Amino acid sequence: MPHRRSAFFISDRTGITAESLGNALLTQFDMLEFKRETIPFIDTIEKAEEVARHICARAESDQHQPIVFISVVNAKVRSSLHVEDSALVIDFFDSFIGLLETELGHKATQTVGKSHGIVDNEQYDHRIEAVNFSLNHDDGVKLKDLDEADVILVGVSRSGKTPTCLYLALQYGVKAANYPLTPEDLDSPTLPRILLPFKQKIFGLTIDPQRLHHIRSERRPDSRYASIDNCRREVNEAESMFRHHGVPFISTTHKSIEEIASTILHKTGISRRF
Amino acid sequence: MPHRRSAFFISDRTGITAESLGNALLTQFDMLEFKRETIPFIDTIEKAEEVARHICARAESDQHQPIVFISVVNAKVRSSLHVEDSALVIDFFDSFIGLLETELGHKATQTVGKSHGIVDNEQYDHRIEAVNFSLNHDDGVKLKDLDEADVILVGVSRSGKTPTCLYLALQYGVKAANYPLTPEDLDSPTLPRILLPFKQKIFGLTIDPQRLHHIRSERRPDSRYASIDNCRREVNEAESMFRHHGVPFISTTHKSIEEIASTILHKTGISRRF
Repeated sequence: MPHRRSAFFISDRTGITAESLGNALLTQFDMLEFKRETIPFIDTIEKAEEVARHICARAESDQHQPIVFISVVNAKVRSSLHVEDSALVIDFFDSFIGLLETELGHKATQTVGKSHGIVDNEQYDHRIEAVNFSLNHDDGVKLKDLDEADVILVGVSRSGKTPTCLYLALQYGVKAANYPLTPEDLDSPTLPRILLPFKQKIFGLTIDPQRLHHIRSERRPDSRYASIDNCRREVNEAESMFRHHGVPFISTTHKSIEEIASTILHKTGISRRF
Repeated sequence: MPHRRSAFFISDRTGITAESLGNALLTQFDMLEFKRETIPFIDTIEKAEEVARHICARAESDQHQPIVFISVVNAKVRSSLHVEDSALVIDFFDSFIGLLETELGHKATQTVGKSHGIVDNEQYDHRIEAVNFSLNHDDGVKLKDLDEADVILVGVSRSGKTPTCLYLALQYGVKAANYPLTPEDLDSPTLPRILLPFKQKIFGLTIDPQRLHHIRSERRPDSRYASIDNCRREVNEAESMFRHHGVPFISTTHKSIEEIASTILHKTGISRRF
């Protein structure tokens, strides 16, 4: 087993920012393996000192010094995370906040809790409303109120519509409905009649037939639904329909949910709602 | 209207990392307003040069120079984003990748597309499975297979269970079911019988009655369901139930969905599934 370097993500809040950038950097070294640990909610000097002891102990037991990503806004808490002698420290706030203070002509507030807009009830309500909209308009269950939708995702069963809608709601507060193209819908190259009034809001998802076959086989092994022939046919017909109507569409095959969602926003020009 | 400084988040992928850290930094200057623009998928020299022209044009029309956050792994693409003369540039990769190369003794691969584990079908499948689990076990709809759950969130109606479950699934691949405490459940301080076998997996959500009253009133104005007296009673009874059974619980009142989710993972010791 190769030796794994320890990597810590230390945050005064959820750790999501520290993980996001830290992992983006570490995956540039994918020839190495890392033992990752996220330590959130480090917002007092006492907690910071305890984390520092934990990291120093790890540094002593490991062959190599740990990498420590720090996203902590309070300068006193940051300086209590004193591990520079035992670890490589990448401190996001320390690195950039001074530059910004100089450029903007103001001191950083050093207040924890603004960075995800957390205490903002209006934002919360907006997100929940979008989530509920997605849940109520999942899989074509409810077709009224579609005029409220920011976007309507259309595609064959298991092309990635539901998780994308939920992600759009949670991450961006965007109201996304979805409509599954059934085998009956696919018999003709025209859009399902119910969608015609909303043609401007439709965005298509497609998927490689082989990948669709794999996904559907997990769900219903050896079914006609999952067969490669049927997957090929459905995907072909769906793409023909999109082309016939000039509906923009993307393939979800090699994309993460984040990528599918941000590509849709990018291509439609819809902007985040909070 | 105060002058708003332009802030750009430039990424070779979704822009989520650049936004996450950039916004964390900018919210430290909440006395100022920013005109934010995210520009994702800048992964070629041509696109980078186009963005550079866009930013330089903005710099000329604005009173102050823009702030530009860059998260781009390819060094050639990064250097084509040559806007240092017209903007304050905060370049995450440029700032840290050299440090990491020295420490780790390897060159960065400069490959776009690993940083969210995107092409990894197994991870995708895992997330989707968790999302489907959440959808199938939302609002106590389906109580079998609860032994598959990593955690079961319990709380009164509108305490934040559903969005938290979905976020746990999407962000962490964690299988989270939820069970709403009905007025009948709350008549007695014992846990609903159906939950007893899973007591170790239960995590409680509570909420300030005033805030609950507000949320429920949006949904069903002037109902008994939404009345402040009823909200107070339900919340009291739910908290008594949690205490009676030693069920850990947190208040969602002043927390974002991210914070609720990461607090649950932190307190239960459940780790991300991908």
